[in-house]
Order: sequence, then structure tokens, then C-alpha cells
Amino acid sequence: MDTTSPMFLVLDLTGTFAFALNGALTAIRVARLDIVGVITLGMFTALGGGMIRDVMLGALPPATFSDWRYLAVAAIGGLVAFVAGRHLDRLAKPILVLDAAGLSLFAVSGALKGLDLGVGSAQAVILGAITAVGGGTLRDVLIREIPAVLSSGLYAIPALVGAFVLVAGDQLGVADLPAAITGAVVCFVIRMIGVRFGIDAPSPPGTGQRA
Amino acid sequence: MDTTSPMFLVLDLTGTFAFALNGALTAIRVARLDIVGVITLGMFTALGGGMIRDVMLGALPPATFSDWRYLAVAAIGGLVAFVAGRHLDRLAKPILVLDAAGLSLFAVSGALKGLDLGVGSAQAVILGAITAVGGGTLRDVLIREIPAVLSSGLYAIPALVGAFVLVAGDQLGVADLPAAITGAVVCFVIRMIGVRFGIDAPSPPGTGQRA
Amino acid sequence: MDTTSPMFLVLDLTGTFAFALNGALTAIRVARLDIVGVITLGMFTALGGGMIRDVMLGALPPATFSDWRYLAVAAIGGLVAFVAGRHLDRLAKPILVLDAAGLSLFAVSGALKGLDLGVGSAQAVILGAITAVGGGTLRDVLIREIPAVLSSGLYAIPALVGAFVLVAGDQLGVADLPAAITGAVVCFVIRMIGVRFGIDAPSPPGTGQRA
Repeated sequence: MDTTSPMFLVLDLTGTFAFALNGALTAIRVARLDIVGVITLGMFTALGGGMIRDVMLGALPPATFSDWRYLAVAAIGGLVAFVAGRHLDRLAKPILVLDAAGLSLFAVSGALKGLDLGVGSAQAVILGAITAVGGGTLRDVLIREIPAVLSSGLYAIPALVGAFVLVAGDQLGVADLPAAITGAVVCFVIRMIGVRFGIDAPSPPGTGQRA
Repeated sequence: MDTTSPMFLVLDLTGTFAFALNGALTAIRVARLDIVGVITLGMFTALGGGMIRDVMLGALPPATFSDWRYLAVAAIGGLVAFVAGRHLDRLAKPILVLDAAGLSLFAVSGALKGLDLGVGSAQAVILGAITAVGGGTLRDVLIREIPAVLSSGLYAIPALVGAFVLVAGDQLGVADLPAAITGAVVCFVIRMIGVRFGIDAPSPPGTGQRA
Repeated sequence: MDTTSPMFLVLDLTGTFAFALNGALTAIRVARLDIVGVITLGMFTALGGGMIRDVMLGALPPATFSDWRYLAVAAIGGLVAFVAGRHLDRLAKPILVLDAAGLSLFAVSGALKGLDLGVGSAQAVILGAITAVGGGTLRDVLIREIPAVLSSGLYAIPALVGAFVLVAGDQLGVADLPAAITGAVVCFVIRMIGVRFGIDAPSPPGTGQRA
């Protein structure tokens, strides 16, 4: 696995773009921020996961900061969302789909980068999940929402599964591209099933139904 | 002082377990999360302080991430709390005691690791306190509570005192084990006195009584 | 540019002091915290931006932690604010002015340190802005406010402009001191104009006026 390959860059930048759109649309929908707030939240959402990943790997300065393409893609995504996000009543669905797309792409790109820098298999799976949920968690903390990773049963799990598929593929000698695509698709499908059917993981015994 | 010693590992993993239980019980009590949210909050609480410590020391990847025992202990703690936490009306006290235990153990393990990696004495004390309060602060931010380190007068102070006891013992040539145990016990006792008697530090002059 | 110069240290410590006063006064005004909470929030606000900067540069342990002068200045600032902040009805304006001062000083010191450690020009500008807004963002998250960087149109922009002025001056061969002072003054003036006239950046098209 090689994080300098074009494939890795395409995965990572596409995830960055999806989360920039997602964060910026969230800023418009939930917090009614102005253009600076919209683009800033888009950039934090887009770049946060990769920054946490690179800090944990000791790969400093983080690529999301030292490589101008990440900054440019995140800023453009925020700007596109600012201009396009005028139909406030139709933002909820694109926000969820973009979030699932970013989650899926970062789960595999995070796991890939972990393998590339030599962490163990279990750590690569965890790192993929942290990369995937990091940006959205930062987004939710900044706008004072309970993070999706805590409140939504099928948020961390699809990210773990997607990262696991990639790492298992790597162990079995599958080529990078099909392993990454399979992992991302599996994550995306599980996440969207959760969104579509409102599936949550089991509640603690004795707490009964939640509203 | 040696952070590869069994003693250090026992201190650090016991603190991890206490905070995993604490974070997971908090998730059940305050935020009524499902199993994924409960275990996730347990793991963030358990691993957050050590991650911040290792990032600040430049000891990357953080031990809490690269060493599978931390991940396993944190996940098991979260799972145990999920299963055991069914008596919702009796969670408040165990949550406080476990938080005090994690605070005490991380205050000394954080200071120990700082000394081991060669930071100065004052920095080791601060690092112990940051390690101790880090996980709980992350927990409180994620569930949108004002962090205990800000709202509770006797939260940062016992952590500073416990870390100071350990560092002073190290300077005076006291063996690791008694210094660590003394520091942790002092921290725990001060914290529990604060909890028991609701002692807060003085308010700013002129602001009068607080509710 | 040289971050070991007295000039850099004066800029960085003055910014630290301004943010320590600001964070501590905010703790008194908004959250009614006791002395430990007041000083802790002052220290987090004062040291947060520089810590994020140094983590991103891989300059670990962060100077704000390894160099005792930062810890001392931040603690003294918090203590001064605790004692002086008794006139609750007059805190709003000093809080805003101190925040603008810290923002301006950290924008140039962050960009200076980035250039000194060899990041590119665009990255140095971004790093200056992150350093400038980091402490205040941490402050707002901890007291559960929407961060100023999101809600105030002229918060990130003056920081970016101030850092840009410094980096442009460096490129054009201007001496450090006038470049830093000019950058800080430009940032401060833009920020205070925004505060004075309540200027916000444009809202997304179609969202109409905000309350």
C-alpha cells in the first residue's frame, strides 16, 4: 500500500471534498452562519479527520496542512456549498449522503495510510475509523450537537467494517484499488441502510425505549 | 523512572479501565446512548488523556493507540459498564468514584512518563494534571457538559497535588512504587473530600454566592 | 525569521498574556466559575493556539508547555483577571479588545514560527490564522458557546490578513520587526472595525436576514 499513489490521493481528496460540502451545508442548515463561518466549518469538517490521523501517526506537519491541494479542495467545497445551498428545505438528505461518502472514503484512506506507515492491522482499522469519524465529530462539537459517532448506532460501525475490509484485503494480497473500493462501498451501504431505516444499535438493558 | 516497567503499565491500564467504566456509565446516565455510543464514549474518556499526553511528548503513535492492551482494556471497560449499568438510579456515585480513581492514576502515570521522557519537574507535574483531566474534559465536551476541570474547584488541584507528590518523591530518591501510590492516594482523597463536602474553590470577588 | 529571537518571544508572550486575561474574564462573565475554573480557562485560552501550532509543526513538546515562561505568563494573566474582574458590568469591552490583541499577536507569531520551521508561504499564513483562532475556539467549546471563528464574519479574516502581511513582508525582504508590527496592527484594526460596526460577512443567498 502506498500513500503517494494517485489512487490514495483521489480517495483522500474526494473524501475531503464530500466533507467540505457536508460541513458547509450543515453550517447553513443548523447554525445559519455567514460565508466565513460556512467555509470555516466546511474546512474543519473536511480536514479534521486527516489531521487527527496524521498527528497520531506522527506524520507532521499533517498532509492536510502541508499539501496545498487539501486546503484548496476543502475551500472550494465550502464555497460551492455556500453558493448552492440556497434551498434550505432540501439540505437534509444531501448532508447525510455526503457525510456517508466522506465517512467511507476516509475509513479506507485512513486505514491505508496506517498500513503504509507500518502500524499493526488492528491499529490500521481503528485509525481508519478515527479518520472517518474525526471531521464530523469536530463539526458537531463546534456547532454544539451531540456527535453522530455517539448518538447514531450505525456510524462508527460501518467505518470500522470498511477499514476492516481494506486491511483484510491487504492481508490476503488483494490489489489496492479493489480492496479500497470494496471497503468504501461496504461502509457506505451499511451507513445508508442505518440512515434509511433509522436503525440504532441496542440500548443498555433496562433503559427501555428512547424517544 | 521507567515507563516500560510493569508498575507503570498497571497504573496506566487501571486508570484506563476506571475511565472506560466512568465514560460508559456517563453515556448511559446523561446522554442515554446506545451500545456503540456507550462504548465509544467509554473509549474516548479512557484513551483521551493518554493520547494528549503522548502527543505533547511527541511520543507518536500514542501508546494508547499503538499498544493493543489499551484499546482492549478500554473496550472491555465500556462493555462491562454497558451490561452492568442497568440500575440507572444508582449510577451517580460509582461515576464519581471511578472518575476520581482515573484522575489519580493518570496524574501519577502522566507525571511518570514525563519524567521518563526527560521533561522538567514543573512540566512533569503539569503533564500529569493534563493527562488526568484530559479524558474527562473530552467526555464532557462530547456530551455538551461544562467540563469538570472548569466547574469543579477540586478537580485540577488534586491532580496537580498528586503529580507533585510523585515528582517530589522522584527528586528525593524515593522508589517509584511508594511515590506513585502515595501520589495517587493523596489525589484520590482530596478529590473525594471535594465531592463529599461539595467544596469549591473561592469565587471571584464581587460575584457573590453561586446557585 | 528566527523564533529564538527576543522579538518573537515578546510577541508570543504578550499574546499569551492577552488571551489569559481574556479567557479568565470570559470565565467570570459567562460561566461564573470559581478561581480554579477561571485560571484554567485563562490558561487553556492562552496556551491552546500555540499548542495546536506546535503539534502541527511537529515541534514537540510544544513551547507553551516545555518553556516555563509561557506557563507562568498564562497563570499570572489568569490570576490578574480573577482579582481585577470584579466589575462584572464592564467586562464585555475589555474581553473583546484583549481577544483582538491576542488574535493579532498570535497571527504574526504563528506565521513567523511556520516560516522559521520551513513550511511554505501559504501554509505559514494558514498556520498563523490557526494559531490566532485556536485558543479562542477551545475557550468557546469548553464553555459551550458557538466559536467566534464560526459566528463572527470578521474573526478568521483579520487573522489571515495579518499573517499574510507578515509573510509578504518576509518575501519582500522587510525586516522582522516592522513586518510583525504592521501585520499585527492591520489584524487588530480590521477586527476592531468588525466589532465596532457589527460587520459580518455575507450570509448564504436565500437565507435572508439573521436575528
